[in-house]
Amino acid sequence: MPRTGKQTWTFSSPPRLVAVATVAGRNESEGPLGQHFDIRHDDDRAGFDTWEHAEQALFDQAANLVLKKAGLKPEDVDLMVGGDLNAQLTAFYLGLRPYNIPALGVYSACASFTEAMALAGLALDAGMADRVMAGTSSHYSTAERQFRFPTEYGVQKPPTAQRTATGAGMALLAKTGGQVALTEATIGQMFDFGVQNPWEMGAAMAPAAAATIRQHLADTGRRVIEYDCIATGDLGHVGHRILRHLLAKDGLDPGDVLTDCGMLLYRQDQPEVFSGGSGGACSTLVTLGYFVSQLETGRWRRVLVAATGALLSAVSTQQKDSVPGIAHAIVLERKDG
Amino acid sequence: MPRTGKQTWTFSSPPRLVAVATVAGRNESEGPLGQHFDIRHDDDRAGFDTWEHAEQALFDQAANLVLKKAGLKPEDVDLMVGGDLNAQLTAFYLGLRPYNIPALGVYSACASFTEAMALAGLALDAGMADRVMAGTSSHYSTAERQFRFPTEYGVQKPPTAQRTATGAGMALLAKTGGQVALTEATIGQMFDFGVQNPWEMGAAMAPAAAATIRQHLADTGRRVIEYDCIATGDLGHVGHRILRHLLAKDGLDPGDVLTDCGMLLYRQDQPEVFSGGSGGACSTLVTLGYFVSQLETGRWRRVLVAATGALLSAVSTQQKDSVPGIAHAIVLERKDG
Repeated sequence: MPRTGKQTWTFSSPPRLVAVATVAGRNESEGPLGQHFDIRHDDDRAGFDTWEHAEQALFDQAANLVLKKAGLKPEDVDLMVGGDLNAQLTAFYLGLRPYNIPALGVYSACASFTEAMALAGLALDAGMADRVMAGTSSHYSTAERQFRFPTEYGVQKPPTAQRTATGAGMALLAKTGGQVALTEATIGQMFDFGVQNPWEMGAAMAPAAAATIRQHLADTGRRVIEYDCIATGDLGHVGHRILRHLLAKDGLDPGDVLTDCGMLLYRQDQPEVFSGGSGGACSTLVTLGYFVSQLETGRWRRVLVAATGALLSAVSTQQKDSVPGIAHAIVLERKDG
Repeated sequence: MPRTGKQTWTFSSPPRLVAVATVAGRNESEGPLGQHFDIRHDDDRAGFDTWEHAEQALFDQAANLVLKKAGLKPEDVDLMVGGDLNAQLTAFYLGLRPYNIPALGVYSACASFTEAMALAGLALDAGMADRVMAGTSSHYSTAERQFRFPTEYGVQKPPTAQRTATGAGMALLAKTGGQVALTEATIGQMFDFGVQNPWEMGAAMAPAAAATIRQHLADTGRRVIEYDCIATGDLGHVGHRILRHLLAKDGLDPGDVLTDCGMLLYRQDQPEVFSGGSGGACSTLVTLGYFVSQLETGRWRRVLVAATGALLSAVSTQQKDSVPGIAHAIVLERKDG
C-alpha cells in the first residue's frame, strides 16, 4: 500500500541541469553506452597508487569538468551534495576537498545519486542556493574491498553477483539554463525481505524499487506510458526479473518502458559482469551520460530514475544482519522553454 | 574570508522541535549532563551481542521515544534524516529499519547531526514534509573499531585523543508545536590543514569550526553576544584552544559564550576522556538533552551549534591521507508564540 504522506516532492520551479559530466572506467567505457561518457579511462587505476586514490581522482575529474562545461568557478557554486560507497564517504570528501564549496555528504548505498539530486533540487527550489553540484562515484575495486573481499583474493562469484561500476558523474543544477529539468523526487523507505547474502543485492533491492515506483505513480497520478523510460538503479538482470514479478502481483505491467541502469551499462559478455552493473556510479553514469542526452536531443520527454541501494556493510554481513533495500526516484523532463 | 554565496539558510517558517529524545551510554549518563538524558544505560552493550547491535538499539530507542513523546506513529512522519559513524551508516539504517518512514542517510562524520537537522528544516520549510525526525548515534566501541583499533586491543592513547560518545538522539520537527524553533543553518565547507594523526581530531576540525562560525556571523550580521551559547560539536579541550586562537587572529573574542559539546559531556576525571567527547552522539546528546532544555525553560533565547566532523576512514589513514574538517551550524531559538 502506498503511504498517504508527502513522499513525492514536486518542485515548484524545477531546477535545470545546466551541465553534466561523466567519467568512466575501462569496462564502462567499453560497454554499450561508452560513447556517451565524457572521460573514458583505459586503466581503472588512472595512474594512482591505490584504488581509493583513483576513485577520488575520478570524482575530482567529474567536478572539474562539470564546472568547465558550465563556465563556472567553485566560488560560483553554493553547495555540493554527493557520496560514494566507501566507508565515511572518502571518495566524495577527499576527492572534492580542493573545491572549497559547502558540502553535504549523503549515503543510501547505490541510491545516493538520486538522494543527492533530490536534495540539490530541494535546496534550489527553496531558494537556499542558486547553483548546486550533485553526483556520486564508485569503483569496482574499492567496493569489493568494502563489501566483500579485496579483488586480489580472486574469490569466485555466483551468477547473481553484480559488477560495481567504476566512474563518477556530476550534474550542475541551477534555476535556469538548459532544457532538462529535475521536476520531482520520491523519497523511499526501507524494505527488508531477509536477504543475507552480499552477492544477492538485486533481490534485496527489488522490493524497495517496486514500492518507490508504485508510490511515485500513486502520488503523481500518472500511468507508466507517460514516461519514455522508467529505470531502476542497479537491480541487474536477476533483480529486474524479481521487480517485474512484484509489479505484476499489483497488476502493473510496465512493458518495455521499464529497464535497469545495471542492465544497460555492460554487455553480458564483458568480464565479470554476471547479473549486471551496480554501484553509486551505475545510475549516475547511465542517467547523466545516456538519459540526459536522450532528453537533450528531444527523443525523450520524461524519465523516472529509481536508484536502488542495498544497506549493508562488511561488519553487518559478519554479524549476520539481513540487508534492507531502499530506492529514491527522480524525474527528469525535457522542457522546451 | 567568508564566502559571498548562500551559505546560511534562513527558514521563512522556522520548524519547531515538537519533541526530543536522548539515549545515553554509561559514561555519558555519569557525566555532568547525565540528568538531562531520557534513557540512561549502565552498560554500553545494552544487552546485545555486539557493540554494533547495541548502537542500533540505542538509535531505535531514541526514535521510539521521540514518537511516544510527540504522540505520533511512524505513519504520521513523512521523513527521517540521520546518520552515524559506522561504515555505510548501519546504525541509522539497520536501527531504524522497523519504522517504515522514508529515510535519507547523511554523513559528515561528527557534523552529521547538524547536517540532518539542517536538511530536516529545509524539507519542512519548503513544504515537502509536515513532520520529520532527525538525529544521529555513535558508540565508543564501534567507532574505535571503525577509525582506530578495536577496544579489545587495549591500545594506549595520547592526551589529544577524544572519547566517542555512546548514545543517540532524535528530534521530531514540525511546522508548529513547542517553543524551540530551528531558525537557521550554515552549511560548511572543508578545510584541510594537513593533520594525518587519527588521534588529533580536534586540531583537524578547529579551522572548519572557525570558518563556519565566522561565516554564520557574517551572513546574519549578528554579534557573539546575541547568542546565549555558541557551541562547537566535539573539538575537545585541545581543539577548543586552537579554535580560540584562530578566532583571535581575526579579532574575535567570544569569551564565555563559546563552549564545546565535547567539553560539556564528561568530567575530565572520567575514564579515557582525554581531550573530551566526540562522535555523532556528542553534539546530539548535548544539544537535544541540555541546550533544548535551556531554551524550553526560557533561561536561553538563542544557541548556535556548530557540529564538527573529521573526514577520515581507517583506509584513508592507512593510505596516508590528511584529514579535512567540516562544520555545519544550526541555530535554535526560544519562541514565545
